[in-house]
Amino acid sequence: MSISMYQASIPVFVRILGNLSTILDKGLAHAEAKKIDPSVFVSARLAPDMHPLARQIQIASDAAKGAAARLAGVDVPSFPDTETTFGELRERIAKTVDFLKGVTPDQVDGSEERTITLKIRGEDVHFPGQAFLLFFALPNFFFHVTTAYDILRHNGVELGKMDFLGRP
Amino acid sequence: MSISMYQASIPVFVRILGNLSTILDKGLAHAEAKKIDPSVFVSARLAPDMHPLARQIQIASDAAKGAAARLAGVDVPSFPDTETTFGELRERIAKTVDFLKGVTPDQVDGSEERTITLKIRGEDVHFPGQAFLLFFALPNFFFHVTTAYDILRHNGVELGKMDFLGRP
Repeated sequence: MSISMYQASIPVFVRILGNLSTILDKGLAHAEAKKIDPSVFVSARLAPDMHPLARQIQIASDAAKGAAARLAGVDVPSFPDTETTFGELRERIAKTVDFLKGVTPDQVDGSEERTITLKIRGEDVHFPGQAFLLFFALPNFFFHVTTAYDILRHNGVELGKMDFLGRP
Repeated sequence: MSISMYQASIPVFVRILGNLSTILDKGLAHAEAKKIDPSVFVSARLAPDMHPLARQIQIASDAAKGAAARLAGVDVPSFPDTETTFGELRERIAKTVDFLKGVTPDQVDGSEERTITLKIRGEDVHFPGQAFLLFFALPNFFFHVTTAYDILRHNGVELGKMDFLGRP
């Protein structure tokens, strides 16, 4: 018995993206309660040369759909990075989850050794599917979801780690 | 073919903890270059009610060793949370990696269905091993490593995402 490539990828992305959507809801509710323009949060960053909240969500979406598509051997769907509101960011997450839910275990399972090629800073980097998932795709995805959480938390939104992890 | 419980846990923790150690080195080098007391970074936080850097490292360590021990069915080693310097935090990471490297595939593999019981906010929560690893232990671990990175980045340390991911 062991973990399938599908189990280690799609359900994890779907679950954490659902939590991210709830985190955004709390961010918007906080903005409304405090009469803060929600766009202040959408464009908030932790450092001047870090990406703002909106871009963190877009990259988390890209990380999830890119990993799922590459492991499944299908084209990565391209979503324009045009979101500027909490509503649009939630839509982006919902579209990403819809795509993920359309990917089947049959497509992803058996991709452990499939060569995945990524362009990282202009260079082609090749990974076997399993190393790609465990050492690149999942860490990269969690990095951006956590940073989105940290941006909102830094700006006073009342969040706890269970919002990130979801209820077991 | 598929991913073993060992492969999805120990090597991921070991690799990311190594990256975290390098991130701390860069934090200390930055403090020294800018003549900032390193303890300013060790106690820095993103919000007044978030944990400071030192505690993020301790919890990342706990998440990794706790998951490894629980999946392996051995006692979780207890490390006192007394670190107050970059050097001590690096030691904490090194001790954690040493413990992880002593856990064998034989101990961890087959733990997919093993019941793991955690106390979360005072309540016993039970997970099968696989769900514990994928939906709790890995996300929790990445959450604290990313937040440690975000704290240093927010405080001006020059880090990039490849420091977090490591060179492929």
